[in-house]
Amino acid sequence: MTSAALAKSAQASDALLSADELEAALRRIGAERYHNLHPFHRMLHDGKCTRAQVQAWALNRYYYQANIPAKDATLIARLPTAELRREWRRRLVDHDGDAPGTGGVARWLRLAEGVGLDRAYVESTAGILPTTRFAVDAYVAFVRDRSILEGIASSLTEMFSPTIIAERVSGMLANYAWITQDTLAYFTPRLTQAPRDVQFALGYVKEHARTRAEQEAVLAALRFKCDVLWAQLDALHYAYVTPGLIPPGAFVPSQA
Amino acid sequence: MTSAALAKSAQASDALLSADELEAALRRIGAERYHNLHPFHRMLHDGKCTRAQVQAWALNRYYYQANIPAKDATLIARLPTAELRREWRRRLVDHDGDAPGTGGVARWLRLAEGVGLDRAYVESTAGILPTTRFAVDAYVAFVRDRSILEGIASSLTEMFSPTIIAERVSGMLANYAWITQDTLAYFTPRLTQAPRDVQFALGYVKEHARTRAEQEAVLAALRFKCDVLWAQLDALHYAYVTPGLIPPGAFVPSQA
Repeated sequence: MTSAALAKSAQASDALLSADELEAALRRIGAERYHNLHPFHRMLHDGKCTRAQVQAWALNRYYYQANIPAKDATLIARLPTAELRREWRRRLVDHDGDAPGTGGVARWLRLAEGVGLDRAYVESTAGILPTTRFAVDAYVAFVRDRSILEGIASSLTEMFSPTIIAERVSGMLANYAWITQDTLAYFTPRLTQAPRDVQFALGYVKEHARTRAEQEAVLAALRFKCDVLWAQLDALHYAYVTPGLIPPGAFVPSQA
Repeated sequence: MTSAALAKSAQASDALLSADELEAALRRIGAERYHNLHPFHRMLHDGKCTRAQVQAWALNRYYYQANIPAKDATLIARLPTAELRREWRRRLVDHDGDAPGTGGVARWLRLAEGVGLDRAYVESTAGILPTTRFAVDAYVAFVRDRSILEGIASSLTEMFSPTIIAERVSGMLANYAWITQDTLAYFTPRLTQAPRDVQFALGYVKEHARTRAEQEAVLAALRFKCDVLWAQLDALHYAYVTPGLIPPGAFVPSQA
């Protein structure tokens, strides 16, 4: 870069984005980094996965699902007003439900059972890939250690989830005879919950990112979260597809 | 399992191991899970890696090296006596040195430069794989959040490192004409530092793991640490060898 170009670039990166520009920048990150672009997602929804591969996905993804309430409670604990805490509490209700057997985590367990896994084995998380644990734990730690603004921004992968859910459900129902609508019941409420959650979180970051540095932190938080999701599919693909090297101690399908 | 076998197994797993049995159990974990068994390690030391793959390894491994002092300081901050802190402080000195340009982290930067990477790019950690960051951060968090006994036990992968270092150095010198003894200078002091560190840490866990539950925690800590190292090679292998899918934003060799 010439020094003139460098100066222009420095100037550009200091300028505050409008709320619409910030949203557009967030959407560009999704278009480049959301895990619907990952080859494992394509395999899964195109019906190219074996039952064992779908099991590995459901088993590992359970650890992510089971930690979402921990992530949300970690954020609620840091929110300063009852209004904000009530808003975020809806997510806890969505995931943990109002009674035994209700809520997103319980529905994910039914999905895991529906693809042939033992419920107690799934709940033990004994067979998950180490990378799944590291990535998910990094997400909870991010929401604990970064600013509230960044914690809220890291939830914004939900801007892109209705698309992936629609693809996943229709693709899986069409391509796997052994998967039923009931098994995929986890996803149905997400199609309305996610847009509602996004409306709040996106509005919050557009209003509260008041400097370019804060806007950059918001964008970095979304990139981080895309990495968390992407790394999980990398690890699944590596262990169970290509080259298919299962790390010591992780789920071996035939032994399940 | 029959109920008699279950009872026997439960009984066996309650019995305290002798110090020698505990050490043997630790060595078995190394024999099954240490990353010298990983195909990427074998490629690296057999001369099967391209220069780009060696660069990716050096770049990512820098993040691990650079966080070892953070891990050690995190443990020192929790140690209760000057004697223990002095013992562990030697590791800080080994890695951070006594003057600019000395110590393990500085030597790793020279290794990275020696394989053709830009020093500032390496230090920025901008191009590392997300899984590298998640795994290494998990290691620092483990030493912060678990018991001191577990924190010390998690260092015991060094029981197995002289073997891997000897293989790595001789293999890399023999197989890569563009790698010099000077580039690999990082490893020479490790051959004496690691056994000295192990002598203390192994003695500590043998003395302080006084219940079977504590012994199991020690074994689990070593398994965890093996996972931290293994996951890093999984991610390198996936991104830069097979299938060779580099995650969005990570180091692309031709652009380095």
